[in-house]
Amino acid sequence: MSICILSIGSELLEGSVIDSNSAFIANNLKRWGGKVELIRMVSDNKDEIVSLFQKYSKKFDIILTTGGLGPTFDDITAECLAESAGLSLELNEKAYNHMASCLNRAGVTIRQEHKHQSMLPATCRLFNNNVGTAMGFSVSLNKADIICMPGVPLEMKDMFIKEVLPFIVGKLGLKEQSYIDLHFLSIAESDIDVFIRSLNISNEVQCIINAGKGQVVVKLRGENKELVEDYALKIEKAFPKNFIGRGDILPAEYLVNLLKEKGKTISFAESCTGGMLSEMVTDISGASSVFYGSVVSYDNSIKENVLHVSADILNTFGAVSEECAHAMAEGVKKLMNTDYAISITGIAGPTGGTKDKPVGLVYIGVTDGENTKVYKNIFNGSRQQVRLRSATKALQLIIDFISNK
Amino acid sequence: MSICILSIGSELLEGSVIDSNSAFIANNLKRWGGKVELIRMVSDNKDEIVSLFQKYSKKFDIILTTGGLGPTFDDITAECLAESAGLSLELNEKAYNHMASCLNRAGVTIRQEHKHQSMLPATCRLFNNNVGTAMGFSVSLNKADIICMPGVPLEMKDMFIKEVLPFIVGKLGLKEQSYIDLHFLSIAESDIDVFIRSLNISNEVQCIINAGKGQVVVKLRGENKELVEDYALKIEKAFPKNFIGRGDILPAEYLVNLLKEKGKTISFAESCTGGMLSEMVTDISGASSVFYGSVVSYDNSIKENVLHVSADILNTFGAVSEECAHAMAEGVKKLMNTDYAISITGIAGPTGGTKDKPVGLVYIGVTDGENTKVYKNIFNGSRQQVRLRSATKALQLIIDFISNK
Repeated sequence: MSICILSIGSELLEGSVIDSNSAFIANNLKRWGGKVELIRMVSDNKDEIVSLFQKYSKKFDIILTTGGLGPTFDDITAECLAESAGLSLELNEKAYNHMASCLNRAGVTIRQEHKHQSMLPATCRLFNNNVGTAMGFSVSLNKADIICMPGVPLEMKDMFIKEVLPFIVGKLGLKEQSYIDLHFLSIAESDIDVFIRSLNISNEVQCIINAGKGQVVVKLRGENKELVEDYALKIEKAFPKNFIGRGDILPAEYLVNLLKEKGKTISFAESCTGGMLSEMVTDISGASSVFYGSVVSYDNSIKENVLHVSADILNTFGAVSEECAHAMAEGVKKLMNTDYAISITGIAGPTGGTKDKPVGLVYIGVTDGENTKVYKNIFNGSRQQVRLRSATKALQLIIDFISNK
Repeated sequence: MSICILSIGSELLEGSVIDSNSAFIANNLKRWGGKVELIRMVSDNKDEIVSLFQKYSKKFDIILTTGGLGPTFDDITAECLAESAGLSLELNEKAYNHMASCLNRAGVTIRQEHKHQSMLPATCRLFNNNVGTAMGFSVSLNKADIICMPGVPLEMKDMFIKEVLPFIVGKLGLKEQSYIDLHFLSIAESDIDVFIRSLNISNEVQCIINAGKGQVVVKLRGENKELVEDYALKIEKAFPKNFIGRGDILPAEYLVNLLKEKGKTISFAESCTGGMLSEMVTDISGASSVFYGSVVSYDNSIKENVLHVSADILNTFGAVSEECAHAMAEGVKKLMNTDYAISITGIAGPTGGTKDKPVGLVYIGVTDGENTKVYKNIFNGSRQQVRLRSATKALQLIIDFISNK
């Protein structure tokens, strides 16, 4: 069984759009043991598309295309497919009615171009589009089923998961892989690696370790559900203090869950991160029960007047100092009356660095009112990277701080 | 002159990584009139890569590859290139020394795998890497130059712009296209469209209008610099109140520039956006001279105790109300002692909506102390989309508010 993806659209070859569809499709097929062998961008060129359909349909069992299903003149996927397979192009009544009812609901008048969108190869199979106007369709040619989906990611994703994937799974007889991602914080990749090696993991299970953004992720995959689950449990249990969850859990989500579990609240004082840490935490639905708020104290006057950092500290040690981070954390905790607080103050760059206080120097404070700890960090990278690393590190530090109590 | 891009890495065909490199390369080549004819993902498979190098080198003038230059066993681009061209693989002293000095600086001990990374085709041309350890390299084969770059986007981008693009421009004799993007706020796409049609733009100049995120962008491209500039000026001048700048200017950048120009300061009170607006503005280097700070008042206690929204307003109208947005804007302006202030309060979802106050309902307030205006919005989309649309709309509203004074 072999699968290929063609992303259709001249804009992809001009670099004005990044193709995220192919990765989504490939990733979801992989969860069913389906392997994509070719991904290729194709411009809106009829001769090229027709010749690729004819050539690849002799080589692949499944050809998936995205793009070129819309109402404008450069949407030619259906036309190319009909020509490749020697089929006529006909107004497909079901596709037309679907489109018409979508447009009616939105109060759009149907124009001639819209009809063009419903001209599909005769005898094609249809795939529903719950999100947009253009239905998907497929035709058999040589050994392949050529399945055409819209290019709009939201529409494609919904159609692929609900309609196309089940069709492919049935045709190729794919089996769902057990697929577990384990997330760990504040531990070295090598420590987990040593433990995993000691398990002598069976060839039936694939195990990958990825590190980045302060997290280590162990990925386990295989057809044998029990075996994958068995290894997952062993690895989780070996590092109980570092394990934060399965799936796509983010440190911010873990922090929110941890605080909920303990019935505690938190607030932040952010300087160089300018609200990024707050943004990360409030991105988690339900954060409102534990996150009270924050002060973005960009100007020193705000540190002094709102967070009550003393003028003495600001004059003697400066805004980017251990002392200031200490006072900011305690200041915001008091102001917002929370159980915990975090402070971040540093130099994100690209300007503003000195020899003593270089770009990337960031102090992060954590407090529970009784104890306040400040950590000095020097982060590499661009302004945006320094900010991101600061916010992520702060999450990691507060999780450690709360967990070790 | 024909160009092709091969993105090398099994992770691309497994969908665990989205290829953003190809779009970056294609987009930059387009600015020099260079057209990419093929973009293809290739797995770490020696036979496949070698056969593609041999086949495509007869068809294309330039083959660009990204990925597979690192120190691990699955980094095989150099080996494949040597084999395709019938060259031996040798330790490249210059590439090795570059790598060694990078690793020394980072305090990393050089291991055997690292040497593997500097085994390059004999007689290859080198391209400097200012950001990472792996230098780029190229070899001539048949009619093509095959140019291999790292897959890490930061490294690839730097190398492409500084080293590879000038080489391609020289080889293919490309000419820089005049390339102007005009950004407009608070205007309908159709109003600009009508004006542009009236200009009867010459065939020498390509003109595209894109709308989204509250902005309209008019893109003008062509070889004839004077002509492109001439149209740009006409279009800018037709909408002086809406034009915010050329290039990749963001509304947040425009706001910072506008405030700097007027010598004024600003602060924010954010509820549902949770710091996103502050994060956008502080992402602009130099924002500190006009942005004092903000209060993320997620919990009602913060609205009451820090921003001094009266308990009466919170109890009678609720936190998501015109009255609350009004009081939040005035409260933060007073607290932070700035010339202007913005407030945002709403329901980002996915839960928390009611019939009267549905998910997506967001009140945005702007004030200069004398006048306070509150705008009611209902945004569609996911939690993250509602938040993003709220923050972007707030920028647009305050820009209008300040500009119309």
